[in-house]
Amino acid sequence: MRSLEGLSINLATVRQQWNLGEAVEACARHGISAIDPWRDQVAAYGLANSAKVIKDHGMRVTGYCRGGMFPASDAAGRAAAIDDNKRAVDEAVTIGAECLVMVVGGLPLGSRDLSAARRMVVEGLAALMPHARAAGMPIAIEPLHPMYAADRACVNTLRQALDICEQLGDGIGVAIDTYHVWWEPDLEEQIARAGRDKCIFAHHICDWLVPTRDLLLDRGMMGDGVIDLVGFRRMIEAAGFFGPQEVEIFSAENWWKRPGDEVLKTCIERFRAVC
Amino acid sequence: MRSLEGLSINLATVRQQWNLGEAVEACARHGISAIDPWRDQVAAYGLANSAKVIKDHGMRVTGYCRGGMFPASDAAGRAAAIDDNKRAVDEAVTIGAECLVMVVGGLPLGSRDLSAARRMVVEGLAALMPHARAAGMPIAIEPLHPMYAADRACVNTLRQALDICEQLGDGIGVAIDTYHVWWEPDLEEQIARAGRDKCIFAHHICDWLVPTRDLLLDRGMMGDGVIDLVGFRRMIEAAGFFGPQEVEIFSAENWWKRPGDEVLKTCIERFRAVC
Repeated sequence: MRSLEGLSINLATVRQQWNLGEAVEACARHGISAIDPWRDQVAAYGLANSAKVIKDHGMRVTGYCRGGMFPASDAAGRAAAIDDNKRAVDEAVTIGAECLVMVVGGLPLGSRDLSAARRMVVEGLAALMPHARAAGMPIAIEPLHPMYAADRACVNTLRQALDICEQLGDGIGVAIDTYHVWWEPDLEEQIARAGRDKCIFAHHICDWLVPTRDLLLDRGMMGDGVIDLVGFRRMIEAAGFFGPQEVEIFSAENWWKRPGDEVLKTCIERFRAVC
Repeated sequence: MRSLEGLSINLATVRQQWNLGEAVEACARHGISAIDPWRDQVAAYGLANSAKVIKDHGMRVTGYCRGGMFPASDAAGRAAAIDDNKRAVDEAVTIGAECLVMVVGGLPLGSRDLSAARRMVVEGLAALMPHARAAGMPIAIEPLHPMYAADRACVNTLRQALDICEQLGDGIGVAIDTYHVWWEPDLEEQIARAGRDKCIFAHHICDWLVPTRDLLLDRGMMGDGVIDLVGFRRMIEAAGFFGPQEVEIFSAENWWKRPGDEVLKTCIERFRAVC
C-alpha cells in the first residue's frame, strides 16, 4: 500500500468546509503530512497563525497558491502585479513552502492581444526572479488548460511553460497538473524535457469528468474521469520527480458540498487505488 | 465594404430556426452565397432534395459537416466508422461540397488511453483516404479545442493535425476554426506551415466569450468575445487562403433562440465590421 507521504492536499479542495487551521488539523488527523494552501486562506487565518499551525503539525508545504496575474492594461498595473508577487514570495517563505505556484494571468480587460499578454507574463516573471532567487523561493509556472487562456492564464501548454523557464534561467520551473495538460499531444516528450531540465517542482492531480458541466468548478475526484493517472505518474517518475501527488479539486456541486472528512477519506482511497 | 462572397454560413448556426431548404432560401434572400450543411440536416431534408435546393440557389458549399468519430472499443466499431465516413464522402460529392470536415472522435467509452484513440484516428483516416481521393473529395481535419479531447476530438492543435496530414499525403488538409485554435502559442507558425503545405481547406469563425457558460453550446457571435478575428484572417491570408470565412456558432441560450433573419443580418454586419 502506498505511503501517505506521497499525498498532499491542496487546500482549495476543502475550501468550503474548513479554514486553514481546521484543514491542517483534519489532514493531520487523517495521516496526511503535506498541504498546499491558497493566499486567501492564509490571509483569512493570518500569516503568522498559518505558519504556526503548519509548523506545529509538522506539515510539508508542497506549494503556495498562487502568484501570477501579470498582464494589465497599463504600466502601473503591471508594476503593482510584480509588487504583489514579491509579497507572495515572502509569504511563501514564511510558511515554508517548497515553491510559489504561478497562475500567470490572461488578457487585460478589453484586450484581444494574446501575444502581448504573453510578453507581459515573461516580463513580469523576469522582474520577479531576482527577488525570488534572493529569497530562495522556487517559482513554479502552472500551465493552465487552454479554456482559461482568456481569463486566467495565457501559458497553456507544458512546452510553452518550459520555453519560458529556459529563457529565464535558474529558480523557475513548472507545476504539472494532470487536469490542465493531460490532453497534450507531446506530453511524454515535454515531461521528459522538464525532468532533464530539473524543473518539475510540483505535481497536481484531479480528473477530467465527461461531461464537464462548468469550465472552472467541475473538476473530478481521481478515478471519476478519463485521465490515466497511473500512466501520468509513471511519466513524472521516469522524469525523476518523486514528490507528493497534490490533490487539487474545484467542485462546487459535488466535493465542496460534502463533509471535509469524507473528502479527505476519498482522496486517500483514490490515491491508493487509481493514482 | 467587404463583398458577401467572402462569407459562408455553417448551417449549425441556424439549426434551431430552419430546415436545410429554409436555411438555403434565407441565405440567398440575404445575399449570402455559401453554406456548410450538417449531415443530420441533409438527412432530414433528403439528400436529393438538399442537392437540388443548393444547386437551384447557386450556393457554394464550403464544407460538409461532418465525418470522423473513428475511435471505437473494438475492430467492428472502427470498421463501421470507416464505412460511415465513406458514405459521408459520397454525400459530400452529391451536394457539391468543397471538403468533408472531420471531427475525429475522442476516447472510446470506458477508455483512458488517449494515445490509442489518436492512433485509431490516423488509422481510420488512412483507411478512408483511397475512397476520398477516388471521389475527388478533400478531407479537412478540424482540430478541436482541448476541452473536447475526451468526448469529441483527440486532435487538439493545428500542429498535431498538420503532422497527420504530412503522414497521410495528398487530399487531406485542415479546417481552421478560430474558436478551437485561437489560444495556440505557435499559431502563426502553424498557419504559415499549413499554407506552405497547401492544406488550408476551410476557415471557420466565431468568438470566445468571457465568461463561457457551457463547454459546447456557448460560442459567441464575432465581436462579442476576445478573439482578434481580423488578425487571424490576416494570418490565414498571408498563408495563401482566400476562401470564405464560414460562421459556425453553437449558442443554445442566445443565437439559437433568436429569429433566423436576425442571426443572418448580424453575421453580415459583424463579418463586415470585425472579421
